[in-house]
Amino acid sequence: MAQRTSTVIAARDAAFAVLSGGFRLVDLTDVLGTETILWPGAPPLEIVDAVTHDAHGYHARVFTTFEHAGTHFDAPEHFVPGGADAASFSIDDLVVPAVVIDISGKAAADPNAVVEPDDVIVFEKEHGTIPAGNAVLMLSGWARRKSSALSYIGSEGTTDLKFPGFGVEAARMLVDRGVVGLGVDTLGIDPGDKPDFPVHRTVSHPAGLWHLENLMNLEQLPATGGVIVVGVPRIAGGTGFPTRVFAFVPKQ
Amino acid sequence: MAQRTSTVIAARDAAFAVLSGGFRLVDLTDVLGTETILWPGAPPLEIVDAVTHDAHGYHARVFTTFEHAGTHFDAPEHFVPGGADAASFSIDDLVVPAVVIDISGKAAADPNAVVEPDDVIVFEKEHGTIPAGNAVLMLSGWARRKSSALSYIGSEGTTDLKFPGFGVEAARMLVDRGVVGLGVDTLGIDPGDKPDFPVHRTVSHPAGLWHLENLMNLEQLPATGGVIVVGVPRIAGGTGFPTRVFAFVPKQ
Repeated sequence: MAQRTSTVIAARDAAFAVLSGGFRLVDLTDVLGTETILWPGAPPLEIVDAVTHDAHGYHARVFTTFEHAGTHFDAPEHFVPGGADAASFSIDDLVVPAVVIDISGKAAADPNAVVEPDDVIVFEKEHGTIPAGNAVLMLSGWARRKSSALSYIGSEGTTDLKFPGFGVEAARMLVDRGVVGLGVDTLGIDPGDKPDFPVHRTVSHPAGLWHLENLMNLEQLPATGGVIVVGVPRIAGGTGFPTRVFAFVPKQ
Repeated sequence: MAQRTSTVIAARDAAFAVLSGGFRLVDLTDVLGTETILWPGAPPLEIVDAVTHDAHGYHARVFTTFEHAGTHFDAPEHFVPGGADAASFSIDDLVVPAVVIDISGKAAADPNAVVEPDDVIVFEKEHGTIPAGNAVLMLSGWARRKSSALSYIGSEGTTDLKFPGFGVEAARMLVDRGVVGLGVDTLGIDPGDKPDFPVHRTVSHPAGLWHLENLMNLEQLPATGGVIVVGVPRIAGGTGFPTRVFAFVPKQ
């Protein structure tokens, strides 16, 4: 990972040189609570008071969460036995430039739309080759659809899920570019109609990418020039974890 | 909070202007696992597999944690009924310049040593008045003492705790300066011999400061010039939560 980390640092430093002209922060994180739409069948959140203001003079809770709830991080261990866990990523691998590929047009017509090789090619014709050390974020517009599971994941059950993601051919192209992570504004980096998770498997091993799911506010990011911060807690053995994610965005 | 946020943004932008000369990142976060030393009597971590590589083809766990475990964030709600929760802080309130007050010398002689008004005065004589919009971090050297509860918190039971923190008079001075948060490399911002938590209470209301506990690597930060990122997940109603914290540090 050391070679990759030095590439990431170089890409990050180049991006911050641009940000030194002025930036704003954009929060990409949704609130996590008992109303959050989880993967169908996932264990629900449980929240129990340990001490209370009335009885003890202060308040603290015991919080039980599926590691993949809300805006969250996926570690390679999620799909690769013995893969890197949530605690093992250097902070230098978690502050990275990010490009945003907007497929919201075709996603409006097809809820299982994916980022395809042509989307990457069109993006690169306009913005140049996606540099090594970047993350790639898919903007589908799905973050506005959380009023119901039917709207956000296309189903009220555990089958017939529908939501956009990355296609496996485009994911392979991005691995070849040397990207370090993928992110989506939907429930998963694989689309709803791919229950075997081919993209999760393709990018987790051997490339060792991390992923971010259930992001929001991606429409506030530029196509290039943003830097995202992936604030995943250092959970020993974590296959993933709820995470604060935000972006530095150049001021116009 | 809007007035304070604009102060924080101005302070942050000034700090990033210096960082544009080059920076490195310093992780201030410890790994959180079943070996982590918790507040005595706090509910232990529980980690259960929900799905496994062998049975399901991928791995995910259900993670149960006290909200105040490991390197973590304290929200005002922890000590103030109806106070701001972990989800309610704008990202602009969580990326802030930080000064480091080093009391490791007197802490080596007294495990309940605290930051006193004189420590603030001596610091400000050398570095200037601590600006509004900054966080203040206490360096006691305690992060190296996690080999046992006896070493880190001075007790193997629930009483006679011993560890450094902030004193209430210094905390009041810092509130008057307009600081936005406090952090320590010990189990609590109040020292071990103050079980009534006067500093927690003083700074949580009405000033609404957040706190960070169980930080590490503070000896790698400069006295001034660093910017910390407080990546607390947006937990609805959270009195606190395990958090990734790191710093931008100017290159020398």
